[in-house]
Amino acid sequence: MKLTLNERYKRFMAVLAVGLSRPGFLAHFRHPGCWKMLTVAMCMALLGCLQAQELRGHVSVILLGATGDLARKYLWQGLFQLYLDEAGKDYSFSFHGAALTSTKQGQAFVAKVLESLSCPEDVAPDRCAELKGQFQRLSAYRHLATSEDYVALSKDIEAQVQHGGLREAGRIFYFSVPPFAYADIARNINSSCRPGPGAWLRVVLEKPFGHDHLSAQQLATELGGFFREEEMYRVDHYLGKQAVAQILPFRDQNRKALDGLWSRHHVERVEIIMKETVDAEGRTSFYEEYGVIRDVLQNHLTEVLTLVAMELPHNISSSESVLQHKLRAFRALRGLQKGSAVLGQYQAYSEQVRREQQRPDSFRSLTPTFAGVLVHMDNLRWEGVPFILMSGKALDERVGYVRILFRNQAYCVLSDERWVADQSQCLPRQIVFYIGHGELGSPAVLVSRNLFRPSLPSESWKELGARPGLRLFGRPLSDFYAYRPVREQDAYSVLISRIFHGRKDSFVTTEHLLASWGFWTPLLDSLAHEVPRLYPGGAENGHLLDFEFGGAQLCFSQQQPEQLVPGPGPAPMPSGFQVLKAKYRESPLISAWPEELIAKLADDIEATAVRAVRRFGTFHLALSGGSSPVPLFQQLATRHYGFPWAHTHLWLVDERCVPLWDPESNFQHLQTHLLQHIRVPYYNIHPMPVHLHQRLCAEEDQGAQTYASEISALVANSSFDLVLLGMGADGHTASLFPQSPSGLDGEQLVVLTESPSRPFQRMSLSLPLINRARKVAVLVMGRVKREITMLVSRVGHEPKKWPISGVLPSSGQLVWYMDYEAFLG
Amino acid sequence: MKLTLNERYKRFMAVLAVGLSRPGFLAHFRHPGCWKMLTVAMCMALLGCLQAQELRGHVSVILLGATGDLARKYLWQGLFQLYLDEAGKDYSFSFHGAALTSTKQGQAFVAKVLESLSCPEDVAPDRCAELKGQFQRLSAYRHLATSEDYVALSKDIEAQVQHGGLREAGRIFYFSVPPFAYADIARNINSSCRPGPGAWLRVVLEKPFGHDHLSAQQLATELGGFFREEEMYRVDHYLGKQAVAQILPFRDQNRKALDGLWSRHHVERVEIIMKETVDAEGRTSFYEEYGVIRDVLQNHLTEVLTLVAMELPHNISSSESVLQHKLRAFRALRGLQKGSAVLGQYQAYSEQVRREQQRPDSFRSLTPTFAGVLVHMDNLRWEGVPFILMSGKALDERVGYVRILFRNQAYCVLSDERWVADQSQCLPRQIVFYIGHGELGSPAVLVSRNLFRPSLPSESWKELGARPGLRLFGRPLSDFYAYRPVREQDAYSVLISRIFHGRKDSFVTTEHLLASWGFWTPLLDSLAHEVPRLYPGGAENGHLLDFEFGGAQLCFSQQQPEQLVPGPGPAPMPSGFQVLKAKYRESPLISAWPEELIAKLADDIEATAVRAVRRFGTFHLALSGGSSPVPLFQQLATRHYGFPWAHTHLWLVDERCVPLWDPESNFQHLQTHLLQHIRVPYYNIHPMPVHLHQRLCAEEDQGAQTYASEISALVANSSFDLVLLGMGADGHTASLFPQSPSGLDGEQLVVLTESPSRPFQRMSLSLPLINRARKVAVLVMGRVKREITMLVSRVGHEPKKWPISGVLPSSGQLVWYMDYEAFLG
Repeated sequence: MKLTLNERYKRFMAVLAVGLSRPGFLAHFRHPGCWKMLTVAMCMALLGCLQAQELRGHVSVILLGATGDLARKYLWQGLFQLYLDEAGKDYSFSFHGAALTSTKQGQAFVAKVLESLSCPEDVAPDRCAELKGQFQRLSAYRHLATSEDYVALSKDIEAQVQHGGLREAGRIFYFSVPPFAYADIARNINSSCRPGPGAWLRVVLEKPFGHDHLSAQQLATELGGFFREEEMYRVDHYLGKQAVAQILPFRDQNRKALDGLWSRHHVERVEIIMKETVDAEGRTSFYEEYGVIRDVLQNHLTEVLTLVAMELPHNISSSESVLQHKLRAFRALRGLQKGSAVLGQYQAYSEQVRREQQRPDSFRSLTPTFAGVLVHMDNLRWEGVPFILMSGKALDERVGYVRILFRNQAYCVLSDERWVADQSQCLPRQIVFYIGHGELGSPAVLVSRNLFRPSLPSESWKELGARPGLRLFGRPLSDFYAYRPVREQDAYSVLISRIFHGRKDSFVTTEHLLASWGFWTPLLDSLAHEVPRLYPGGAENGHLLDFEFGGAQLCFSQQQPEQLVPGPGPAPMPSGFQVLKAKYRESPLISAWPEELIAKLADDIEATAVRAVRRFGTFHLALSGGSSPVPLFQQLATRHYGFPWAHTHLWLVDERCVPLWDPESNFQHLQTHLLQHIRVPYYNIHPMPVHLHQRLCAEEDQGAQTYASEISALVANSSFDLVLLGMGADGHTASLFPQSPSGLDGEQLVVLTESPSRPFQRMSLSLPLINRARKVAVLVMGRVKREITMLVSRVGHEPKKWPISGVLPSSGQLVWYMDYEAFLG
Repeated sequence: MKLTLNERYKRFMAVLAVGLSRPGFLAHFRHPGCWKMLTVAMCMALLGCLQAQELRGHVSVILLGATGDLARKYLWQGLFQLYLDEAGKDYSFSFHGAALTSTKQGQAFVAKVLESLSCPEDVAPDRCAELKGQFQRLSAYRHLATSEDYVALSKDIEAQVQHGGLREAGRIFYFSVPPFAYADIARNINSSCRPGPGAWLRVVLEKPFGHDHLSAQQLATELGGFFREEEMYRVDHYLGKQAVAQILPFRDQNRKALDGLWSRHHVERVEIIMKETVDAEGRTSFYEEYGVIRDVLQNHLTEVLTLVAMELPHNISSSESVLQHKLRAFRALRGLQKGSAVLGQYQAYSEQVRREQQRPDSFRSLTPTFAGVLVHMDNLRWEGVPFILMSGKALDERVGYVRILFRNQAYCVLSDERWVADQSQCLPRQIVFYIGHGELGSPAVLVSRNLFRPSLPSESWKELGARPGLRLFGRPLSDFYAYRPVREQDAYSVLISRIFHGRKDSFVTTEHLLASWGFWTPLLDSLAHEVPRLYPGGAENGHLLDFEFGGAQLCFSQQQPEQLVPGPGPAPMPSGFQVLKAKYRESPLISAWPEELIAKLADDIEATAVRAVRRFGTFHLALSGGSSPVPLFQQLATRHYGFPWAHTHLWLVDERCVPLWDPESNFQHLQTHLLQHIRVPYYNIHPMPVHLHQRLCAEEDQGAQTYASEISALVANSSFDLVLLGMGADGHTASLFPQSPSGLDGEQLVVLTESPSRPFQRMSLSLPLINRARKVAVLVMGRVKREITMLVSRVGHEPKKWPISGVLPSSGQLVWYMDYEAFLG
């Protein structure tokens, strides 16, 4: 039928062409009556065009590495499935198994694979044989090595298309070959085997996609020289797993129920888990290069994470929109640090590497075979929700799942043994995308009955039958609404179908790939020399690998039973705070190990604050910049629950002339380590006005005077309750450097000064102002301060030479806080 | 021995007195040799004094209401226990049972009670009979009614003391009488029955201590006229329950383990529960006046709450210090609102009240017999941790407990059926102070084995034996380290001992009482007319009373099965956002119900923000003051997870000339409803500088110019990405009022203006600046705006008369957002 229509169109076009070629043909149109005729003609042309689009299209699939393991296990079966799903519709297919194997061997291999293909369960054996026969006729092996081979392939395809009266719709090149072969093949395809205009090219790539951000980028750049972004389909087969592929549709179809649940307000944690029982034996040459993070977390688990965490697009059938939202989720990932991960290695691993790679007996691998990583998202939806990614080999069970556990925000009055699964809000509430294996043995979607009855497409998901005695995630299966696929499908079959349909969102784009490597590479780098914890493997692991988090840090729950690589001898243990010497420069001295010193100082500051607030209603605290106070800020932020922040005014002792948001800025330090963790009212925070109207710290902007009048206005008698100072190795304090022409005496409360080191310009409280404080604390830490500590202990009142020696509160108290290293060296 | 010493002292004093009375005696001291003698004499005198202190003390206990129920059940037994514990030591006792009952009847009653007293388990029957005999001899009943009776009592005590050669140590008056009798008794004690100087008076009071804050205060003032604060011991018998009394000692003895756990970082929730199976039958006359909140929550559960939540004093044996810390905990309680509680009433209650109090058939009580209340603490230790207080009658079990549930911050790699109680950090971690009854049947302290092995005083707490099959809080008992008292003690015995030892911290001080009423009274007031949910009682309650929380709100988990009191008809439901009319003053108009309008505006702002950040890296948003934007701020704060706050600069459209922290200040509104919920960097927030060096909005401070230059410096072309305006009923917008001499045209970007209403002085963006914006949104809401909406729709460009009519962005877009009430009236 379609060909007939097509033919009609062709004839019509021929007539038109002939007409147009005749002189005077156009003149007909001057006659008004002709317009009508033309309209008809135009309509017919339009109709013809539309029909031309429906010309049966032909798709050629070239499977590169057709004789490899992956091809044998999954890809041929996937192609067969594609044929079964699509061939009855608008397209015809041809399948080209290609490899470097000789034609004869290849043909034999392919013939054998084709024979072993299986039909879906619901297809009768006769019909199956028939379908397999059809597929076999469309499939052939060919040796593909030289550029001539590619030219020949292209010609063969063109001939086949022409011969069949078809239109070439597109070509799929599936790279099931090692990465080192990519470039050659890509060059050949690009130069000799692209389809003609109007037909698409899709190249399918298998991981690994690089080893870190740099190598991934190089690979991407290389491929980018041959293919356009929309032509590349990078496979992460996890995205084809049925439970994973259901995440977005599930979120979409249950929008109403999930809308109120899918955020930090309700989600307690998300677990993205892939546990294996097998180890790496036989594959150590690959594994030793990659390790579990590169092998599983960087790709599979991260992809799943973005599907759970991304904002849900209005239209999930738009690939572009899904990809954009995924990318935004990537960008919201908070950077990982060394402390974000725990690593393990099953005990036999090093021995396996030694054996398989002929390494010396002394060789010990640092490659992790187990990793737990804590991921946080920096956005309002997920802030504070722990995303736990975990994978390992030689564990006690094989299972993969994504588990979203919701907070219990209910109190159930009825005694707990009477709770009913679908009514009690106090029983665990969870949604699980069960990827496969484990107790259940198949993919599934589980929703606790006390959440909601989920909606799933009934043509592809059906309710799971009862399995008495089966418990999952601490609850009997009967506590869940549980669904499994009507028909289990291999991930590759799913993905091959999506390639065919151009669903780019089921694949890894270059942007995503680089975003993911950008996220993981710093962690990988920081862990490169980390010694993983050894574990025996299987159930014997016990609780050895359990880990826990506090803030952004992960650590194993149990102490290491045995130190593999001993540290450099026992460190001197801090043991209770001690005052070693009562006086320094005639003022009280408190000296301790760094940790205790900071704790003591923080305690003292809090006590001063509480007293001040009780007496005066407010507490005016002036803080110094530099690195020494950072642990103090952290201590105050995290340990001092009773600190009267709401009544505390925070002032700066000194500031560098950089914008407040510059990482160099003292205020920025304060913001990062203290302000963002506590609740000080906006108007109680007093950064130094280093940037007003003109350039930074411009005299004519009178920033120093402005700060001085702010102090005068708010601080009674300009007398701070507490000023915290440091001491530089040159004897400077605040930003008052030796020989400073201002700030060491005189009337000025706040001054602009110059530093010997960058940034040169500074703003600082003056010595006279500092000395009006009720209390001044000087914090001195670290071995580098030892010399100046010695020196200053001996000098008199010489502020010009040693500004710190000018610190002497006129009626307040001065206390020195020095750690043992600064004090004893 | 002691009497002998005492006599020696008396003789010495007599000699001295005689000597002093002789003329010339003092002259001896002029002789130097005499000084030695005098020193000896002085020393002897001092020694004598010290020994005089050791004169055996006598304590009289007067039990008022000695024939009442409480006395019979608990108090006589408590006094006997006191005698057993203390009589062997430094004190002698007498016990006076007093009441209005006739002497004969009273004596008979007391004799009967004394006969029924029991000794501790470890006392042999013979010894017990002996001890009871001793106690009986020291106890007597006396009729105590008139002031003469009190005078007589006092004289009798004095005679007894003198006769026994004793020193009066103190008197305890235990008020086991109805509150209406307090004043009379107190007056009599104060005027006629105080002990002499050097001896203490302690009066023990039983609840109720008032009905609300006002009545409690009146009662306190009244009692304060008779007794000093330190003389009053208000009993909350919960503080004598062994598990409750153990809370502080437990926290103290396990400081090290708890230090890292006892805060919002680790505690998921705290449940403070008292469930009863009995109902109020027979007691409705009392109950109808009080209800469950006054009966249980305001006192017992609140006391327990403070013991859990308070900062732990360094020295818990200091009553003063404990009381101070408790009071601080009271002050940190966040105020309760109507939505903080759910109320219930067992179905039979109203009928019981009708029967017992002869109420008409139509009578329905609103008194709650069940309440769940969500309490939060406003301090850094507990911020965000829900404290759930619950009590009710006619529930499915009788049990009381405090349960501290810790967050699960671990991931356990091992499959959950293999978890081991003392090793898996993923099993629930809880500490329970089990007050009594329930499955366990005795007080207990339970600590999950995966937490730590607690330290408890072995002389008073012992490990609980195994109870196979017993589950508590979802776990087998074997999951806990579990301790029970070596000897179970009644709460009153515990408290009577503490009264004797002057442990004020086990009692409710006036300050605490008023703090507690101050906390509960607003909730009680707001709930006065609330209809409680009816429940059938017992296990039949099912999940009907389960409740859950979101933020500070509590609600029942299940919908009310039947509405008792129907509301005033179905409210008009907002049903999807609609644009009613496309244009207003030639610009797009968006009109909807208030809730949808706000949602739409918030969506639009977010979309604008996302676009701006994508294009320019930042988003400059200028917000108006007034009440209309408040729901918008709330919407943005709580619903817009994707808002790019980190790249948003917030500016003010106008400000009142009040300090930024004034509740009137527009900035304060912004802080309360938006800023404190989101994370905008400090330096992206731009409050108007209404208060610089001089007085508020002083011309010479050039605040307007400063703001203008800040805008010019940061906002490209001084063109805000979005300006949000409102419209006043007089046609003003921003703080640009009709006939304003400035701001309506001209060069100035920011101006000082005058408002017709307080505060008169304002600062405002000028119309020319507003009109430079890329987008201006005008939000108009409420019926009060209807007239001006009509009027402004008809006027032309007359900014002098109607400033709002001057809003017309020169190259940007103007959109009107009006709710139906403003637009349709």
